[in-house]
Amino acid sequence: MSALPTASRAAVLRKFKEPLAIEEVPIPAEIEPGAALVRIEACSICGTDVHLWQGSLSLKVNLPVIIGHEMVGRVMTVGSGVDRDSVGNELRVGNRILYTHTACGKCYFCTTARKPTLCDNRRAYMYENMERYPYLLGGFSEYGYVMPDAGRIRVPDGVSSELASLSSCALRSVMNALSQVGAIEPSDVVVIQGAGPLGLLAAANVRVRGACKVIVIGSPASRLQLAAEFGADLCIPVDTTTPAERLEQVLAVTSGRGADIVMEFTGVPAAFTEGLQLARKGGRYLVVGQLGEGKFEFQPSLIVKKNLTIFGSFSGDARSYSLALEFINAQQHNFPFEKMITGRYKLDDVNVAMERMKNFQEIKPVILV
Amino acid sequence: MSALPTASRAAVLRKFKEPLAIEEVPIPAEIEPGAALVRIEACSICGTDVHLWQGSLSLKVNLPVIIGHEMVGRVMTVGSGVDRDSVGNELRVGNRILYTHTACGKCYFCTTARKPTLCDNRRAYMYENMERYPYLLGGFSEYGYVMPDAGRIRVPDGVSSELASLSSCALRSVMNALSQVGAIEPSDVVVIQGAGPLGLLAAANVRVRGACKVIVIGSPASRLQLAAEFGADLCIPVDTTTPAERLEQVLAVTSGRGADIVMEFTGVPAAFTEGLQLARKGGRYLVVGQLGEGKFEFQPSLIVKKNLTIFGSFSGDARSYSLALEFINAQQHNFPFEKMITGRYKLDDVNVAMERMKNFQEIKPVILV
Amino acid sequence: MSALPTASRAAVLRKFKEPLAIEEVPIPAEIEPGAALVRIEACSICGTDVHLWQGSLSLKVNLPVIIGHEMVGRVMTVGSGVDRDSVGNELRVGNRILYTHTACGKCYFCTTARKPTLCDNRRAYMYENMERYPYLLGGFSEYGYVMPDAGRIRVPDGVSSELASLSSCALRSVMNALSQVGAIEPSDVVVIQGAGPLGLLAAANVRVRGACKVIVIGSPASRLQLAAEFGADLCIPVDTTTPAERLEQVLAVTSGRGADIVMEFTGVPAAFTEGLQLARKGGRYLVVGQLGEGKFEFQPSLIVKKNLTIFGSFSGDARSYSLALEFINAQQHNFPFEKMITGRYKLDDVNVAMERMKNFQEIKPVILV
Amino acid sequence: MSALPTASRAAVLRKFKEPLAIEEVPIPAEIEPGAALVRIEACSICGTDVHLWQGSLSLKVNLPVIIGHEMVGRVMTVGSGVDRDSVGNELRVGNRILYTHTACGKCYFCTTARKPTLCDNRRAYMYENMERYPYLLGGFSEYGYVMPDAGRIRVPDGVSSELASLSSCALRSVMNALSQVGAIEPSDVVVIQGAGPLGLLAAANVRVRGACKVIVIGSPASRLQLAAEFGADLCIPVDTTTPAERLEQVLAVTSGRGADIVMEFTGVPAAFTEGLQLARKGGRYLVVGQLGEGKFEFQPSLIVKKNLTIFGSFSGDARSYSLALEFINAQQHNFPFEKMITGRYKLDDVNVAMERMKNFQEIKPVILV
Repeated sequence: MSALPTASRAAVLRKFKEPLAIEEVPIPAEIEPGAALVRIEACSICGTDVHLWQGSLSLKVNLPVIIGHEMVGRVMTVGSGVDRDSVGNELRVGNRILYTHTACGKCYFCTTARKPTLCDNRRAYMYENMERYPYLLGGFSEYGYVMPDAGRIRVPDGVSSELASLSSCALRSVMNALSQVGAIEPSDVVVIQGAGPLGLLAAANVRVRGACKVIVIGSPASRLQLAAEFGADLCIPVDTTTPAERLEQVLAVTSGRGADIVMEFTGVPAAFTEGLQLARKGGRYLVVGQLGEGKFEFQPSLIVKKNLTIFGSFSGDARSYSLALEFINAQQHNFPFEKMITGRYKLDDVNVAMERMKNFQEIKPVILV
Repeated sequence: MSALPTASRAAVLRKFKEPLAIEEVPIPAEIEPGAALVRIEACSICGTDVHLWQGSLSLKVNLPVIIGHEMVGRVMTVGSGVDRDSVGNELRVGNRILYTHTACGKCYFCTTARKPTLCDNRRAYMYENMERYPYLLGGFSEYGYVMPDAGRIRVPDGVSSELASLSSCALRSVMNALSQVGAIEPSDVVVIQGAGPLGLLAAANVRVRGACKVIVIGSPASRLQLAAEFGADLCIPVDTTTPAERLEQVLAVTSGRGADIVMEFTGVPAAFTEGLQLARKGGRYLVVGQLGEGKFEFQPSLIVKKNLTIFGSFSGDARSYSLALEFINAQQHNFPFEKMITGRYKLDDVNVAMERMKNFQEIKPVILV
Repeated sequence: MSALPTASRAAVLRKFKEPLAIEEVPIPAEIEPGAALVRIEACSICGTDVHLWQGSLSLKVNLPVIIGHEMVGRVMTVGSGVDRDSVGNELRVGNRILYTHTACGKCYFCTTARKPTLCDNRRAYMYENMERYPYLLGGFSEYGYVMPDAGRIRVPDGVSSELASLSSCALRSVMNALSQVGAIEPSDVVVIQGAGPLGLLAAANVRVRGACKVIVIGSPASRLQLAAEFGADLCIPVDTTTPAERLEQVLAVTSGRGADIVMEFTGVPAAFTEGLQLARKGGRYLVVGQLGEGKFEFQPSLIVKKNLTIFGSFSGDARSYSLALEFINAQQHNFPFEKMITGRYKLDDVNVAMERMKNFQEIKPVILV
Repeated sequence: MSALPTASRAAVLRKFKEPLAIEEVPIPAEIEPGAALVRIEACSICGTDVHLWQGSLSLKVNLPVIIGHEMVGRVMTVGSGVDRDSVGNELRVGNRILYTHTACGKCYFCTTARKPTLCDNRRAYMYENMERYPYLLGGFSEYGYVMPDAGRIRVPDGVSSELASLSSCALRSVMNALSQVGAIEPSDVVVIQGAGPLGLLAAANVRVRGACKVIVIGSPASRLQLAAEFGADLCIPVDTTTPAERLEQVLAVTSGRGADIVMEFTGVPAAFTEGLQLARKGGRYLVVGQLGEGKFEFQPSLIVKKNLTIFGSFSGDARSYSLALEFINAQQHNFPFEKMITGRYKLDDVNVAMERMKNFQEIKPVILV
């Protein structure tokens, strides 16, 4: 291995809402056991990056931070004991990995509840002060530090780094959520609320899993056209219809019963009540997008009288990342994933990309470092 | 079989909120194939009876009706083809049965969704005009007509008719709900919201199924004392504590995590939000009592961030009634079920019983016809 | 409705192993409540038909019988109360239906165990004496009698009668079995043992449900070529390889772990042990084809040490038939189902068809009555 | 902490079938990160210890080894990073722990299959050469070394060390197995095959989980008397009855249907076939004891025709140990667990204890070091 530089250029947020500054950040000389250092190749932008930048997240952020958390990097140096990725694949210097938040493997949620996504000791990227060791805990950076307990999954050779970064936050959340909802029968009609990255990736998934009909509710029209390419049989615009009209359309294709499965990826509280109405009696409702603090009016008898089962799903674990990469590897020629990457930016242009993401001019821009 | 009389005395509601009148109602001469006629021995009173009487149900009621739907009767005459109960036990004239709403066995919900409680063609007792054949579709009556598709389960010899009537509406709803929620591990802490009949029966069930700790939240104090006899390890009065105090008590016995399983049997909308807060991350929430039309404020992100699974459960099918009778048969000496029967009334005193039920002076009064 | 004839031509078996005789069989004048009379349009031939003919079934057969049990007919007359099929679709004279064995809806297995395929009172077609009312209980016949408790599912307009008959015995068994095995993840490698009709239909199903890789083990070569058209990524000939070689091939595409799910549709006892070896640790094994009386040597520690879950699946219920028809309706242009119909015969040529089926010269011949 | 000695007395096996020798074994000076050193307080004897001693295990054993693997110790020294047990409880020097085989947390089985019991990198106690660092990898020893990836669970204060050692191998296997089999309904009749430690602990578990009836099949008579104290309603001696007689007894208490759930803890291959016969149609069969290499005759059609689900279960993970300790803590006054500890021996008397265990004169003897 050739000698590493001592500093990495990275996009640093020092004050909420202000532009990110490209700074020189130290590359840690010491790599802890279980940790690794990577040369970042791609890091796509997520809505959460924008929320953090704008200071509107409810989570604690220790400014200054390096933003970006959907990063794919090539392993440059590894700490002792690193020879496998998080799902058992061989891992060597030179391999590309998708890496992510930590799971301790030792808390109640990791071992007893078997839900590592709920780990009590979770540490996530882009929330920690970049002036302290190990500095490089964000994705818009030349180099990145893979924390000892951080998940890391080898990227299959046939998957580009920019597509792999899609498999991070967005696709792994979809894979994790779908694993919870149980089997989809070939007779099942599935309604997907939301045509953002998660909604589109969910549509492709549900199509691959053999649903009878995939219905996507979302906006704008251009996004719904994309949804059709991602497997939707029926697209219902949310901006030009009433809830009653949407319900009518769903009933029309379900013998008047409603959808067997509804999946929410909108982030809009009102979608929750609408989802309950779109589901048939005895149906399943998967809720993923409801992450805000907002409250709204709701009639809980819908859940009882319709005998619904509701699954809340949050984030994903190593297994979900692995499933995401396998999915994108197998399906990359069946769906136009590359159309989700609406822009490619150099690190120096990160503020342009962030601004456009904030203004809904992008689906998934990617920083190619 | 000795000759049957031609009329049955029964409690008829002709106008909402007015007292029930004891009238002579025709006993149908013709028993349809699959139907039966019974001499009713006991019919307990349910909160729904009071709501129907008061005209506050959202369901359609074709006045005049015979009220009562938790009835146990002795078979007097059977229609052709009746030789088994709904779960395959031999059934003969002279046997006692618990009988209930119909399930057609042929609709999408009966066959494909495998949820007969959601049957599209459901007919329930006490909603149909008693001036039309087969007249005797209510429980506060000397005789009752078992509809061809009505569930009917033989009452085990060791179970009294008054205890069997408890197994109707209340206990079968609990059994049906618990079947949906999955296994309870010996380490699970279960919170039960509500100390009414369903809450008490759920507490006994959860105790029998080996939960680590059973916590009942309810009121008044006397009801909580009863909850302790029905298996509660910890009883939290809902009338003298705040939601924050109740949460604190639950956290104190769950290593700060919250309950593994929460079950709602209150009918109070605010309980729904409180239940979400009492559940641990990755926990399960069973919702049964939310049947009203009321709406309230709610923060759906709790479901997502805590990765909760919510099960709405409504009513019960033949299987649930059978489980209920088996449960009460096996456990009748381990829990003071008879204490739930707070009053015994003759048919002529049905208005006294209903009035007292309305005023919360009873748990489960029973009409012994 | 124009007047019905008084007799139906049908293929009658009077003595095992002797040729079937085309006889005139009475058309019942009385149609019981819940029953129906159909003009049969197609009835495919199943291996069981051959076994019954040869007298090698372990089930009781009351000779003389009309053979054939995979029949699709057009409704001519209905008994009282018939206005819906078994899953709730409207049903009228003139509609085509797939119809099948009975489920009583009232025994322990129908109601409590929720497995109507295990009904205690099951009556199947082609086992009852055709000299007694209602005579027409077999499929190789111009007319057929749909028993009151027999499942009957409307055939979608877009599905031909000959394809619908495929959805009977063979495809409904596959749908029922797959419903038991749980969700298939996009990373799952599935091995299918057997390239007969069930194996081929299972391959198509597993492909539609999004498995990562579908491997079919079977013979002869021509059948494996068909398996590839039904979705197999890898076909392993069973006649020119050893079990060790087959295991090696499966390990080679599963990172040395073995298949996530193995499904058996062979009828060969030795396949059971091989299936246990092909499955990975923690894998699932679905067993469908093992219906013979044969015993063989077996090492049960494989189940324990590999922590396998094994699902035995038998027959199918109304739900499975409905799923089968929906599947074939949706997928008929994606897989060459018509290639499974290797021969079309008139009723008068039934012995030619049966003889060829016996000699493995057919996959699914169909009698077009 | 007072200074540790430099050597530990331990029972070393140098040659199969020869008596164990009490030797002085080095106490490692260096404790790896994540590891710990304990003063062993109790180590019960398992059948596997005897098999290893006799050289009849199929697993690789690197002689010389320290035998014993069900050990409970008090933490003396910890490696860096050790402050929690494997399920998140605080862990300090002075606490007692039950500790066990390793799970790496990084292989396919730990992360993706979510079955850490199947870990690819599993290291178990008593199989590694005691002449190499860290020497103390067996339980019949004064001191023990807790490997970095070894599971370790704090023993609740109210549970004695000798009862805690029961919760090791035997009870954790039962807890792990029962978690796989799903919910037990109050109507379920459960047959337990085997009255050894696992069978007895399973009986207590099934009783606590609310089964309708618990039937234990085993021998000798004294063991069945104990089974009755551990919750069995009906005990059937295996040595004085035929399989047909046992089946008849099970059918007699299950309305002729067979058991809802059968659980095998015998180690006898013939029990597997008998278990399939004792289960009802649609029943569940949990297989735990089949660990030998033996083969036997078997009729796989039983699985298909009865639509059985079979669960193989092996070992247990940190979660299972935690459940085991919680179970014994909660139930220690409800069942006579102490009667399972049929002998207490000093380390110097280990050969007496092993000899008696070999001769079936003990249930669970314990070495109190």
